[in-house]
Amino acid sequence: MIDDRHAHAFVPYPDAPVPHADGGALAGLSFAAKDLFDVAGYPTGGGSPTVLALSGIKTRTAPAVQKLLDAGARFVGKTVTDELAFSINGLNAHFGAPLNGAAPSRISGGSSSGSASAVSNGLCEVALGTDTGGSVRAPASHCGLYGLRPSHGRIVLQHTLDLAPSFDTCGWFTRDAATFARAAEVLLGRDAVPAPTRLLWPVELWTLLAPAAEATALAAAARVQAVLGEATRVNVVLESLDAMFGAFRHLQGREAWLTHGPLIERHAPSLGPGVAERFAFGRGVTDAQVEDASALRTRFTAHLAALLGTDGVLLLPTMPDIAPLRAEPESGLDDYRNRALRLLCVAGLAGVPQLSLPLAGRDGAPMGLSLLGPRGSDRALVAMALKLAAAGVGR
Amino acid sequence: MIDDRHAHAFVPYPDAPVPHADGGALAGLSFAAKDLFDVAGYPTGGGSPTVLALSGIKTRTAPAVQKLLDAGARFVGKTVTDELAFSINGLNAHFGAPLNGAAPSRISGGSSSGSASAVSNGLCEVALGTDTGGSVRAPASHCGLYGLRPSHGRIVLQHTLDLAPSFDTCGWFTRDAATFARAAEVLLGRDAVPAPTRLLWPVELWTLLAPAAEATALAAAARVQAVLGEATRVNVVLESLDAMFGAFRHLQGREAWLTHGPLIERHAPSLGPGVAERFAFGRGVTDAQVEDASALRTRFTAHLAALLGTDGVLLLPTMPDIAPLRAEPESGLDDYRNRALRLLCVAGLAGVPQLSLPLAGRDGAPMGLSLLGPRGSDRALVAMALKLAAAGVGR
Repeated sequence: MIDDRHAHAFVPYPDAPVPHADGGALAGLSFAAKDLFDVAGYPTGGGSPTVLALSGIKTRTAPAVQKLLDAGARFVGKTVTDELAFSINGLNAHFGAPLNGAAPSRISGGSSSGSASAVSNGLCEVALGTDTGGSVRAPASHCGLYGLRPSHGRIVLQHTLDLAPSFDTCGWFTRDAATFARAAEVLLGRDAVPAPTRLLWPVELWTLLAPAAEATALAAAARVQAVLGEATRVNVVLESLDAMFGAFRHLQGREAWLTHGPLIERHAPSLGPGVAERFAFGRGVTDAQVEDASALRTRFTAHLAALLGTDGVLLLPTMPDIAPLRAEPESGLDDYRNRALRLLCVAGLAGVPQLSLPLAGRDGAPMGLSLLGPRGSDRALVAMALKLAAAGVGR
Repeated sequence: MIDDRHAHAFVPYPDAPVPHADGGALAGLSFAAKDLFDVAGYPTGGGSPTVLALSGIKTRTAPAVQKLLDAGARFVGKTVTDELAFSINGLNAHFGAPLNGAAPSRISGGSSSGSASAVSNGLCEVALGTDTGGSVRAPASHCGLYGLRPSHGRIVLQHTLDLAPSFDTCGWFTRDAATFARAAEVLLGRDAVPAPTRLLWPVELWTLLAPAAEATALAAAARVQAVLGEATRVNVVLESLDAMFGAFRHLQGREAWLTHGPLIERHAPSLGPGVAERFAFGRGVTDAQVEDASALRTRFTAHLAALLGTDGVLLLPTMPDIAPLRAEPESGLDDYRNRALRLLCVAGLAGVPQLSLPLAGRDGAPMGLSLLGPRGSDRALVAMALKLAAAGVGR
């Protein structure tokens, strides 16, 4: 009963006029924004009926949206997000599951699910998302798109619904590297650090790949190295992946509870499967756990900065595998999520940029490889994607 | 995690100014309206995140709301409704389960769940609801309130979200008969038919009582008869209760699908448990079923009109029992619903008024008895409730 023209990607708000510049770097492009960004004339629902009810019509527009409008891009709508952005599945219990344009029988990934759905279904060229723990990278990988988690703080997130502010970033999706680069110029400006050049192979992270995905991921990685040079093996893990994942979960959980606990306690919204449990987990995180996790985060950030230096770029799988089937039970998705977050938490903990490129796949479904660089090297990663596409690796 | 001051009764919309007359018949009273009624300055969510998203801010106010405002009542908010009003449980998967003020461990009943919750928790004096298949009568019975399903068409339902228009009615709740009568004067005007006086005892409907509820319901009925006179035994059922219930389900299902099918097909909203199944049922109702059901409805309406004449009033239990526990699984609620609808469908099929009075109860939970009169006798039923209250039967 889904209208395929819409792919369930957009929240069906009544159209409001959103003016854009007549010309500019993005003239002729259409874009959508995750329903976490305020757009004047629209409510901001955040994937939650309660947040939507409380929202009212916004009178201000989030800066990232405004930048695209000022560059001439045309706004086409607000996209479905996982509830309060606290999932990487793309299955919102209240607003539905946006269709994955690259693999319709599979989940889109989330929480920027509708944005990835809109772009992968050809409903717009660019779509803004946010990435706290993987919410741009996961759907980019699953839907066969380019998607960036920028350096933390690189794109301001004013007038946007928070989840865990020390992790929250503003990213976006496109179908090809050239369009991605056009948006990057507008959204990122110039890098203030040297462009990294040296590929690194994070040995432990590659062990997180599902066995079935090894062949395609390794073949894609070989093609990348043929263009960008051979990757040097490095160990990025500090202590253990479990410890890093645990630190991420504790910090994200605590911050998410600080952000949305008051709403949850005041209005007792009916939270969907998994979301309720994650907020309950966040509520229970202790001060001692936060202290330990913060210390590990600080140590890991320094460790990774030293490892990357100014010229290192990790080459890694974005996700452990292609997207799970939509029919997968929630429990299976939880396992998948926990493995995925071990990969995804590296950039989140260290605040560094990670660009997912649609270079691999199996069984007719796409899968991303990622370039992860030093803080501030966002544009350089995009330049690498352009170079790869020019060499026939990617689009 | 529920804020008891709000009892989860209200949809948390931002306050908008809703002016009311300085004085009038309802001066000093506060009221709420189910989130099916348009109120200028607010969206209308209908218990559905998708309807809420599509709503925009309404510029007009439903006539029933306006009548209360014009009579000096003060609007205090919009109340949670079951999703698209298609349930009698009071468990909205997206907006939560309003608390039953009379029996907090039990469901409130629905679909006018928030309205019954607000009044039973003392958050306002009057609350508007709608009743298609029992959506005022069920929560009135469960929350210990007075609640009327008026004669069909007696109160216009413009600027209100439909469910099944040939059954939809606008009712309301209060805690006491005197307040109910004040609102009745404003909302109903005068009856154009003689006041019925003769109590009738619909034998088959009393067999629908749960065994555990018999003692309290019969004791309450005896107190009613001590004031209003002894009830004469009558048979109201035409063909069978199953046939009547079936006709109601087919007609309601078809109309509900005609009303919301386009929304469901266009936007594929994530419908909550039970609601999705009921729309799927409605979608599958055949023309032949509708024809048979319509014919039965016509025959039953004539049969009941002849049986009541101008002076007959049925005395019946509103619901088979007190409210189920909130912890009851959905399957148990389905059984309860199907039994309850056999009682509730009588007034719905015939378009006649039914007033539920909070006269019975067991185990600390209330239960309603009903007066059901000829079409147009709505005010006379309210007068009977006043007479009973004056004699110490009811409040």
